[in-house]
Amino acid sequence: MGKEKKLVEAITSMEEDFAQWYTDVVKKAELIDYSSIKGCMILKPDGYAIWENIQKELDGRFKETGVENVYMPLFIPESLLNKEKDHVEGFAPEVAWVTHGGTNPLQERLCVRPTSETLFCDFYSNLIQSYRDLPKLYNQWCSVVRWEKETRPFLRSREFLWQEGHTAHATAEEAKERTLQMLHVYADFCEETLAIPVVRGKKTDKEKFAGAEATYTIEALMHDGKALQSGTSHNFGDGFAKAFDIQYTDRDNQLKYVHQTSWGMTTRLIGAIIMVHGDDSGLALPPAIAPTQVMVIPIQQHKEGVLEKAQSVRQTLAEQGIRVKLDDSEKSPGWKFSEQEMRGIPIRVEIGPKDIAAGQCVLVRRDTREKTTVSIDGLGQTIKTLLDAIQSDMYARAKAHRDAHIYDAHDYEEFTEIVQNKPGFIRGMWCGGQACEDKIKEDFAATARCMPFDDQERIAKTCVCCKKPAHKLIYWGKAY
Amino acid sequence: MGKEKKLVEAITSMEEDFAQWYTDVVKKAELIDYSSIKGCMILKPDGYAIWENIQKELDGRFKETGVENVYMPLFIPESLLNKEKDHVEGFAPEVAWVTHGGTNPLQERLCVRPTSETLFCDFYSNLIQSYRDLPKLYNQWCSVVRWEKETRPFLRSREFLWQEGHTAHATAEEAKERTLQMLHVYADFCEETLAIPVVRGKKTDKEKFAGAEATYTIEALMHDGKALQSGTSHNFGDGFAKAFDIQYTDRDNQLKYVHQTSWGMTTRLIGAIIMVHGDDSGLALPPAIAPTQVMVIPIQQHKEGVLEKAQSVRQTLAEQGIRVKLDDSEKSPGWKFSEQEMRGIPIRVEIGPKDIAAGQCVLVRRDTREKTTVSIDGLGQTIKTLLDAIQSDMYARAKAHRDAHIYDAHDYEEFTEIVQNKPGFIRGMWCGGQACEDKIKEDFAATARCMPFDDQERIAKTCVCCKKPAHKLIYWGKAY
Repeated sequence: MGKEKKLVEAITSMEEDFAQWYTDVVKKAELIDYSSIKGCMILKPDGYAIWENIQKELDGRFKETGVENVYMPLFIPESLLNKEKDHVEGFAPEVAWVTHGGTNPLQERLCVRPTSETLFCDFYSNLIQSYRDLPKLYNQWCSVVRWEKETRPFLRSREFLWQEGHTAHATAEEAKERTLQMLHVYADFCEETLAIPVVRGKKTDKEKFAGAEATYTIEALMHDGKALQSGTSHNFGDGFAKAFDIQYTDRDNQLKYVHQTSWGMTTRLIGAIIMVHGDDSGLALPPAIAPTQVMVIPIQQHKEGVLEKAQSVRQTLAEQGIRVKLDDSEKSPGWKFSEQEMRGIPIRVEIGPKDIAAGQCVLVRRDTREKTTVSIDGLGQTIKTLLDAIQSDMYARAKAHRDAHIYDAHDYEEFTEIVQNKPGFIRGMWCGGQACEDKIKEDFAATARCMPFDDQERIAKTCVCCKKPAHKLIYWGKAY
Repeated sequence: MGKEKKLVEAITSMEEDFAQWYTDVVKKAELIDYSSIKGCMILKPDGYAIWENIQKELDGRFKETGVENVYMPLFIPESLLNKEKDHVEGFAPEVAWVTHGGTNPLQERLCVRPTSETLFCDFYSNLIQSYRDLPKLYNQWCSVVRWEKETRPFLRSREFLWQEGHTAHATAEEAKERTLQMLHVYADFCEETLAIPVVRGKKTDKEKFAGAEATYTIEALMHDGKALQSGTSHNFGDGFAKAFDIQYTDRDNQLKYVHQTSWGMTTRLIGAIIMVHGDDSGLALPPAIAPTQVMVIPIQQHKEGVLEKAQSVRQTLAEQGIRVKLDDSEKSPGWKFSEQEMRGIPIRVEIGPKDIAAGQCVLVRRDTREKTTVSIDGLGQTIKTLLDAIQSDMYARAKAHRDAHIYDAHDYEEFTEIVQNKPGFIRGMWCGGQACEDKIKEDFAATARCMPFDDQERIAKTCVCCKKPAHKLIYWGKAY
């Protein structure tokens, strides 16, 4: 075989070893490759195309709320990073430092941005003068670097792609509204576009962002019962404004500090898609985000007219705005089927001589494997309807799985039993003390994922950990 | 005024001081702001939106030729950068070095990518096994860093945004074809979308890319008669393949080296737009790339019905796919006009009580200042026609200006006279010797911009510099 490509190999089963299954899928579905720098991955065409679709959809949702895109420098001078105390303590231990430009040592070290609050604040302190300059609703799409020790593709890498929104407002009220508005944009995007149900809520002080007054989060549940923080939105109040002197002259001619927010989503969402929708055949992509929605696979393609018909089907579907490809390679149909399944393409169209004679073709859903024979006439509409059904069925199944893995714990014994045996979210009351969070983390490596907005049912009167009076319901879980 | 915003200030005239005019425009048209890191700029909403439009249009043109997007790491290990000798010599003096991750020194220094040939080669050496894996046609959109000493917004900055395409092919012939194909994609894009005429040609060996076998270029002429290299496409032959051991098994079962290309365009194009189309009122954007194509400005907006009508005009135009905004701020119409002109918005719509009574409005072209009174009925179509006319007129004017600034030099005396007195391209024959290039650079700071494809007219039989026999026509010029 020389340096020939190897055959598609089976992937590890999810039940056997979920972590290995995940690693197999990211590689074999050709989403990423490893680079020669530990913890930095290469996004291959399918992986990057999913990110492009995420970008396009999210960016449109941002712009509808008045957000504008900008681009800030990659580097942050050390003195600028140091301006806000909590922020620098949170990030300095994990930044990459540039010390030389060409052969010359720099006068001041520059860190490669781990996030750009400090750059935006420096920018805003010059840009904002008057109440007429507010609000500022800026976002950027870029990569950031955090020098993590343990890395996993998409979930935790030393460099990752993301967007970071940074807004400045005249009042505390407006900043809080924007923080929540963007959290709901994120949540709706996850549910509608990625078919991933999320819990919307607020982080505890222990879990909030370095320098924030409050952090809001959306938390998704992976197939293995672990939580994944999928997007966060931070209300900074006027803390950064005071550290960076961002003041404006109000209508009453008084100088006032602005109130700020920031919010971000990352390529980690691709990890969520894999772990929510994937199965033992590989990736399964929601149609709204799939780079290829339909793969046309000819059967007996050397027989007269088969390839021509397959090409014309592909062409017709493409003209109707469906993202469709034709696999006319020399591989066997069986091989093509498993490649299409591995790559998570939502629908395959099988078309052979008999189908053509009958004016039909076979549609196979990636999510359920369900096969239907349908007429080639009106195929575009049939497929659009089926793509919509797949999208909503994938959401419904993910939600049913998530809901079936939420457990209530009324005391520590019950909590222990659940956390050790039933992967999922655990609803438990909390006294508000960090000692309880610390204990639960120490005992079980579980954390307070969030205090949900919609669901503050008081399932008990006392803290699940210390038995002191408790008023807050928490979703606890083990997290990526 | 407290910290109130200052009035719009006049910009320096182009004729008086072109460099200062340029700096004034980039700031006052709100394209960029300076950051606290020397040589790194902030792209503000209008500056970034122009880049987004460039991206969208170019990306579509790439994908039509089969190109796929990927994303490679930001960092290059020093040992990887060192693998191709000419390449490392070209770039090592101007890279930024990361030496620490958090508090720990790194085992090996990492450079922040100045370009990603070495990363793509490393990737391809693992990815490409068989002739069936070829060609690979990958591109990425990212930022790169080059630690330049002298910097100017868009034209030369320490960090800039760009795309870099990297392809691998089975044969030398295919690689050459792709190199030229992408150069023509760039040239067509500049002429059709940016309304900037370019000279297409080949670089001399002295001017080619570090590590390339041949570099092709498109050269544009700025308003001040200086050249701007606007896009380059490199044929690497199998030089990088040999350095990085990128081999494939061909149909004949022999191991062969691939042949590679790379090609890039950057945010420097925004500098070209400014310096080709701008004037003493500021920026002038070609409609195809303008973030806002039309600004609606109400006159006497407090009179009954004016603002409502202006809003409905904006709405109607937006629904027809025109990028339109309404300036309903409290500023005077005169102020709004000069802001719209400064920002280069191609058309303004003036609409006041008398216009409304007559069912009319006034259109003013940014490029020519021409005013026409037109019916509000069918305004969308009128404006679309006018946008097309502006686009082609801007190209025609830029081409006439460029053509009027191309001079022929038959000997060194004539060359000297032109280069010292007539800013523009100088056509002159060249013997092929680097000594002549060096002398011209030393004497006049002029360089061989390219050997044009279309125009190899032999305007003399001897080299414009040394009088030896010469067969190559060169476009010489002073360049940014």
